[in-house]
Amino acid sequence: MIEYEKDGAEIYRRSFATIRAEADLAGLPPEVSQVAVRMIHACGMVDLVRDLAFSPQSVARGRAALRAGAPVLCDVAMVASGITRKRLPAANEVVCTLSDPAVPDLARELGTTRSAAALELWGDRLDGAVVAVGNAPTALFRLLELIEAGAPRPALVIGVPVGFVGAAESKQALADHPSALDHLVVHGRRGGSAMAAAAVNALASDQE
Amino acid sequence: MIEYEKDGAEIYRRSFATIRAEADLAGLPPEVSQVAVRMIHACGMVDLVRDLAFSPQSVARGRAALRAGAPVLCDVAMVASGITRKRLPAANEVVCTLSDPAVPDLARELGTTRSAAALELWGDRLDGAVVAVGNAPTALFRLLELIEAGAPRPALVIGVPVGFVGAAESKQALADHPSALDHLVVHGRRGGSAMAAAAVNALASDQE
Repeated sequence: MIEYEKDGAEIYRRSFATIRAEADLAGLPPEVSQVAVRMIHACGMVDLVRDLAFSPQSVARGRAALRAGAPVLCDVAMVASGITRKRLPAANEVVCTLSDPAVPDLARELGTTRSAAALELWGDRLDGAVVAVGNAPTALFRLLELIEAGAPRPALVIGVPVGFVGAAESKQALADHPSALDHLVVHGRRGGSAMAAAAVNALASDQE
Repeated sequence: MIEYEKDGAEIYRRSFATIRAEADLAGLPPEVSQVAVRMIHACGMVDLVRDLAFSPQSVARGRAALRAGAPVLCDVAMVASGITRKRLPAANEVVCTLSDPAVPDLARELGTTRSAAALELWGDRLDGAVVAVGNAPTALFRLLELIEAGAPRPALVIGVPVGFVGAAESKQALADHPSALDHLVVHGRRGGSAMAAAAVNALASDQE
C-alpha cells in the first residue's frame, strides 16, 4: 500500500506551507492573506488570489463582529455545515433559513428564488452580522435590494456564489454597490460553499 | 437596481445550456456527461472535464445501487448536507460518521486522522454502497487499505478530495488500484464537498 501522511496537524502545516510558497500573496494585506490561504486550501487553486477583491476594512470588521457575538447568516446549509463551531470566538449563532417551511410560499409571493426569499427571515439579525453567500447569486442580489430598501447593515458580506448565471454579476454588484458594504468576493464564476465557510473559519480565529 | 434572473428553473436551464455549450463533453459517454455537467455546475469551471476519470461501468453501477436502496457514505458533513434528499430514488440513507464521539479515540488508536478513522464505523454498510469522498485524502487512502484487508466492496467510489497534501495521490491510487473498484475521480488538486454532492445528485436522478 502507498505510504501517506496520517498526521492531521502535519497535513495542515504542509498544505499551508505549499499555498504560501505557490500563491502570489505579496499584494495582499497580511490579514487578508491569512483568509486567502484558507480559501485556497478549500478549493485547491492557488490562482484564486487573482480574483479576490475586498474592501480595506473587511477582515478587521468581520473579525470584530464575530468577537462581539455577531451571527453568521448563510445562504445554504452547506455553508453552515462547513463552519467549524469550535473556532467561533463567541459561540456565535450560525443561521440558514432556506429550509424554513415558510420559504416556498414567500418565494411565490415575491416572484423570486427560494434562496432569495429565505433572506426575509433573517430580519433584524442582519444588523452587524457576518453574511456568507456561497451558492446563490439571487441571495446576494436580494441582499443588495434589502439594503437599498433600508434594511440594517451587516458588518461584512462574504460574497462567493458560484456558477454560470448571475454569479459574476452579483459579486460585481456587491463590490460596486453605492452602499459601500464591507465585502470580500471572488470575482468570476468560481466560488462555493466550501470557500465561503473557509473565509468564515479564517475570520473566526487567527490560528492556522 | 440591477435586473437579474429570479426564476429558479430558468437559472438551472441557462446554467446547464452554458455548460453544454462551453465544456468539451464530446469524449464522454452520455451518462458520464450528465454527471460531469452537474459537477461543473457546482464549481463554475468547464475545464474540469480534462481532469475527470472514471471506470466504464461507474455511472451505471452507481445509479443501479441507489435505485436498489444503497446508502451513501460521506467523508464529511458538508457532502451529506449537499445531497438533495428529494432526488434520491429509494429514500437512501446518507451516512457521515465523522462526528461520532468514538472517532477521536479511534484516530489515536489507529494513528491516523479522524477522517480516516471514521470509516471504521461504516462497517457492513460499505457492501454495495455509494462512497462519496469530497474532502479528506486520508479517507480515500483508508478505504483502499480496508478493501485490501478484505472489507466489503462498494458499488461506486466518488473520489474528489481537494487540496495540497495527498489529494492528487489518493485519487491516482484509487484509479490505479488492483482491486479495480468502480470509480469517478477528478485528478489533481481540485475537488471538494460540493463536487462530491453534485455527483451523487446526478446519479440519483436523470432529471436536470
